[in-house]
Amino acid sequence: MTRFDGVRALVFDVFGTVVDWREGVAREAAPFLARHGRHDVDPHAFADAWRARYQPAMEECRSGRRPFTRLDVLHRENLEAVLADLGLDPRRIGEAELDDLNRAWHRLDPWPEAVAGVTRLKRRFTVAPLSNGNIALLTAMAKRAGIPWDAVLGAEVAQAYKPRPEAYLRTAEVLGLRPPELCLVAAHNDDLRAARAAGLVTAFVPRPAEHGTGQTADLTPVEPWDAVARDFQDLAHRLGC
Amino acid sequence: MTRFDGVRALVFDVFGTVVDWREGVAREAAPFLARHGRHDVDPHAFADAWRARYQPAMEECRSGRRPFTRLDVLHRENLEAVLADLGLDPRRIGEAELDDLNRAWHRLDPWPEAVAGVTRLKRRFTVAPLSNGNIALLTAMAKRAGIPWDAVLGAEVAQAYKPRPEAYLRTAEVLGLRPPELCLVAAHNDDLRAARAAGLVTAFVPRPAEHGTGQTADLTPVEPWDAVARDFQDLAHRLGC
Repeated sequence: MTRFDGVRALVFDVFGTVVDWREGVAREAAPFLARHGRHDVDPHAFADAWRARYQPAMEECRSGRRPFTRLDVLHRENLEAVLADLGLDPRRIGEAELDDLNRAWHRLDPWPEAVAGVTRLKRRFTVAPLSNGNIALLTAMAKRAGIPWDAVLGAEVAQAYKPRPEAYLRTAEVLGLRPPELCLVAAHNDDLRAARAAGLVTAFVPRPAEHGTGQTADLTPVEPWDAVARDFQDLAHRLGC
Repeated sequence: MTRFDGVRALVFDVFGTVVDWREGVAREAAPFLARHGRHDVDPHAFADAWRARYQPAMEECRSGRRPFTRLDVLHRENLEAVLADLGLDPRRIGEAELDDLNRAWHRLDPWPEAVAGVTRLKRRFTVAPLSNGNIALLTAMAKRAGIPWDAVLGAEVAQAYKPRPEAYLRTAEVLGLRPPELCLVAAHNDDLRAARAAGLVTAFVPRPAEHGTGQTADLTPVEPWDAVARDFQDLAHRLGC
């Protein structure tokens, strides 16, 4: 009897855990920056700067200073701020081009084994994202990449951003499950800590290249999570799928 | 140029349009009634009686007399009322057995060509339920039957029951689409009328056996819907999938 015997659904963190956001955003930022004559800006640094505004933007919603606002909107505001920091006036770029670059987050590629791993895990478990990404973003990403989610859940369905407890608890509730019947799969110790506090089972899958070659955080589990696996294929093997 | 050139997502009514609720509920009611010695009750009549309480229960939420309450809860209340009408005391039956019968709605079978049709339509369109069913119900149903939805949407995500306009409009919004970029596929003229009023494109697929052999309603389109197809395979053919 392990804690996994009672687990019915695996819910996944997405940015960093399922998909490589840094390479995907850099890939789309590169031609954008070139078009605007900004060969001096490294596309990976651009991706990092955009992502650096992610947590502070969500914190406005978590704190209640701002009503829940879906991530596509926050990403777009953050993009305009990053462009302004670089001396690029968003108003001179045009809505269509900004919208398209903003949808780079809809077109992120999964880590190499992720789709095969989710497909295997789906045999035994209900599989769904529990991401701060919004429904349109996660649906477009899954359709493009072939991620076979059983449902598209997360912050927008819960109307709360992780790591607020409501994000985990309402996800269990809409699946008709108790928290210990859900396992969060994530590459981030903070996310797993909040999931455990809400009563979920936890599985850590490190993604040591999420932040590029110099990554120092989340290389190893900082608590004894219920499962620790090398990647999704290894997790499927460990869970008997 | 047809109205379908701009359509990005097909959203489906589920009960009656994708799945045969009457046969599915009758199939599970039969052994339940037999166990309780009620061979006098026809399982199809039981299914009809349970379904007859569906619209009035949702109307309590639509009218604002009751906050939005997910369908699993309404189905369970309606089940207890139907049992009481038959002189069966729900309190003597036990929670586990009532819960299991209530989940008959999670285990409905699709019409014969429905899964192949959705699979084909998914090549060109984002496909999702726009059902009054809740997320847990629709997710369990799709997993069991192999319906390859791209996302699980509907009343619970919109927090509004069809035919309230919010059910259609919020579904478009969470998909990041304008109403004319969505097409509702349904076997019910009333649902299509409300979808059209909200600005959606409409496709009628009759299901003449939904209510058994004596069905009189929804056998033909009562308005010139944007598409009329024999079944989902025919719809896929007409839409060039």
